[in-house]
Amino acid sequence: MLSAEIIAIGSELLTPTKTDTNSLWLTEKLNEIGIEVKLKIIVGDDELRLKETIKDAISRSDIVITTGGLGPTEDDITRKISAEAIGRKLIFREDILASISKKFLKMNREMPEINKRQAFIIEDGDVLPNPNGSAPGMAVEIDNKYLIILPGPPRELKPMFENFVLPKLKQTAGEIFVKRKVLRVTGMGESAIDEIIAPVYTQYKNPQTSTLFNRSEVEIQLTAQGKNEDEADQMLKDLADKIVAKLGIAVFSVNGELMEEVVGRLLIESEKTLSVAESCTGGLIAQRLTEIPGSSKFFVEGVVAYANTAKIRTLNVPSDLIEKFGAVSAEVAEAMAKNLLEQSETDFAISVTGIAGPAGGTEEKPVGLVFIGYASQEEVKYIKLNLPGDRHLIRWRASQAALDFLRRKMIRMKS
Amino acid sequence: MLSAEIIAIGSELLTPTKTDTNSLWLTEKLNEIGIEVKLKIIVGDDELRLKETIKDAISRSDIVITTGGLGPTEDDITRKISAEAIGRKLIFREDILASISKKFLKMNREMPEINKRQAFIIEDGDVLPNPNGSAPGMAVEIDNKYLIILPGPPRELKPMFENFVLPKLKQTAGEIFVKRKVLRVTGMGESAIDEIIAPVYTQYKNPQTSTLFNRSEVEIQLTAQGKNEDEADQMLKDLADKIVAKLGIAVFSVNGELMEEVVGRLLIESEKTLSVAESCTGGLIAQRLTEIPGSSKFFVEGVVAYANTAKIRTLNVPSDLIEKFGAVSAEVAEAMAKNLLEQSETDFAISVTGIAGPAGGTEEKPVGLVFIGYASQEEVKYIKLNLPGDRHLIRWRASQAALDFLRRKMIRMKS
Repeated sequence: MLSAEIIAIGSELLTPTKTDTNSLWLTEKLNEIGIEVKLKIIVGDDELRLKETIKDAISRSDIVITTGGLGPTEDDITRKISAEAIGRKLIFREDILASISKKFLKMNREMPEINKRQAFIIEDGDVLPNPNGSAPGMAVEIDNKYLIILPGPPRELKPMFENFVLPKLKQTAGEIFVKRKVLRVTGMGESAIDEIIAPVYTQYKNPQTSTLFNRSEVEIQLTAQGKNEDEADQMLKDLADKIVAKLGIAVFSVNGELMEEVVGRLLIESEKTLSVAESCTGGLIAQRLTEIPGSSKFFVEGVVAYANTAKIRTLNVPSDLIEKFGAVSAEVAEAMAKNLLEQSETDFAISVTGIAGPAGGTEEKPVGLVFIGYASQEEVKYIKLNLPGDRHLIRWRASQAALDFLRRKMIRMKS
Repeated sequence: MLSAEIIAIGSELLTPTKTDTNSLWLTEKLNEIGIEVKLKIIVGDDELRLKETIKDAISRSDIVITTGGLGPTEDDITRKISAEAIGRKLIFREDILASISKKFLKMNREMPEINKRQAFIIEDGDVLPNPNGSAPGMAVEIDNKYLIILPGPPRELKPMFENFVLPKLKQTAGEIFVKRKVLRVTGMGESAIDEIIAPVYTQYKNPQTSTLFNRSEVEIQLTAQGKNEDEADQMLKDLADKIVAKLGIAVFSVNGELMEEVVGRLLIESEKTLSVAESCTGGLIAQRLTEIPGSSKFFVEGVVAYANTAKIRTLNVPSDLIEKFGAVSAEVAEAMAKNLLEQSETDFAISVTGIAGPAGGTEEKPVGLVFIGYASQEEVKYIKLNLPGDRHLIRWRASQAALDFLRRKMIRMKS
């Protein structure tokens, strides 16, 4: 099994609030092709330490990946120091400069002089194209080992690694295939899930199973090692099927799909349309759904009726309903969904009204109290939730619960 | 200024889902007393790499802190390897063994044989008591440098560090105060900003300046060392003022505020209200604004008019306007803002219509074309943007540009 080390470069990564997350993604990709990450280093814009770090890493491990420090400014030292660490020169490349200035032209901007720095490449290194940024990456072979230099922004790093590094490493790594599958579950806690599925997964040493709690869902991660991809896939499928049989409809995703992607897919498959009326989630549900490419196929309209006047005027919620039951009530949640369904002429409408806090809670209606409304041609329904967490978490969990409500309705309709 | 390195030990920290968070907390504590973290390392239960890592760290830095690997099992190698790395023996301490077995007795359990390992201490090292666990920590002085060995679980590490390490380091570090300030700039690229401000900040070695590009803004981070807090604050203010003088209104935050917080604060200060009409941003602007506690003071309503029918029905955009100019046009952006302003009776309305991609672009109206509309009682305006990036980035940058448009309008009104 080949060994790798990952070096994240940038002083901001040594502050108390920032952390290196690129290495998690890289580790996953490397593990999948049977390469083990043996060490991770986070170093600032510190020439001496960076140089020593790269030197040590390349002497110990088969593959060394650096991330960050390829920007155009003075403190972007990766190019210079990595060349020094492996005793090679930096070569100025006219063709790279031309492609960088072309990118600036496309944005109607002139290339600043300092971006010239990004046109230097380590002697005998391969250039890794960067479709999402100006700095190219590099891959340098040193006595059958590889030094791979990637930009820091994930949006630049990920496609570069997947398109230009991974294929090459796959050839080098060979035989073992490691594959991972993630099941996502919502509406149940981590320990409740574990009690149900532990009798299943503990019977397997391969695939390995671990569970992880996120803001509003539990991820069940399965990792299988096989002699080839098909074998690993089959092992994952067998265990995943058994887990899904235990948990049922609470599993909303078995292939990495997010909740909003699942809901979007179900809507598109059944050729239905949706509108969303939000109060305390403030546009979060609409935003999540419209982040999906192609969401215009099913998403018609969202109304963020934050003030009561907006609920009354734009969503036609009767003011006496608000007076009688309060804006945070089952009655108002149902009226929001029902009225928007009629106005927007969609097949479904969902709504949320609640108290996200930190202020606004009372003894009767505490922070975290949320009503979700649902309307279709056939019925109008609501659910009442008491969500734990801070403002951010309550909003997120409310958005997840509303999407999950619609998902369960659509799945039950299909069956 | 003293330098520190932090070494997190444990193979689980090298998996794709786990990350070392102890170092963030430790960094904050160290920075506060003027100790700079120069390097962070995450290493598995890997004797060779750990030994080399500790050796290198202690040769480079004044303080080396390890976390984890002090448990009772075979793969808990920190004690043995750190002793080897600094060329000292491990000494068995009867008194520590006695205190460990006492802890087990208190829980009505017999001490397993393997826990004896935890009673070994590096020769001439100080014992750091562990009130929340069985493994003691250690502090070893080596030629005026310190190797500090802490357990991995945060509830063991934190009290041990605060009670037994911090007081000692404070004495060693002396009276340095380190403070940090972040300026945020939007509407300009990182290199353009650097060209303008480099002549200013390069005149200072203290504060140190670094710039960092995020999705739609550049962060300028200033770090100052002073003899006391006031001095450090004053140094930061002096440099920040000079940078702001160069960049002007493009600096939207000098105290860590996010764009939506700045806009929300300006609205609250001037007692104005806002409504937002969104097409391609799909609720993102509403969501960002309502994430702020207290946003109900200024945020009245959002309309996510995604389909043209929603623009026509809910926002009263004339259908012939859409036919003539297209949904993505200056005319429609202005109509969206103007009509929502009237309907919602707010002081301001902003709107966005654009092509976020990946599909939907044409030669005339490519992906990334975005119109931002603005309406107040006094005027209706628009700006046209060609935003680079993928769907996510285009949406984010459009939301940022819309909020920034409103921010600049409000600031100009005040002056």
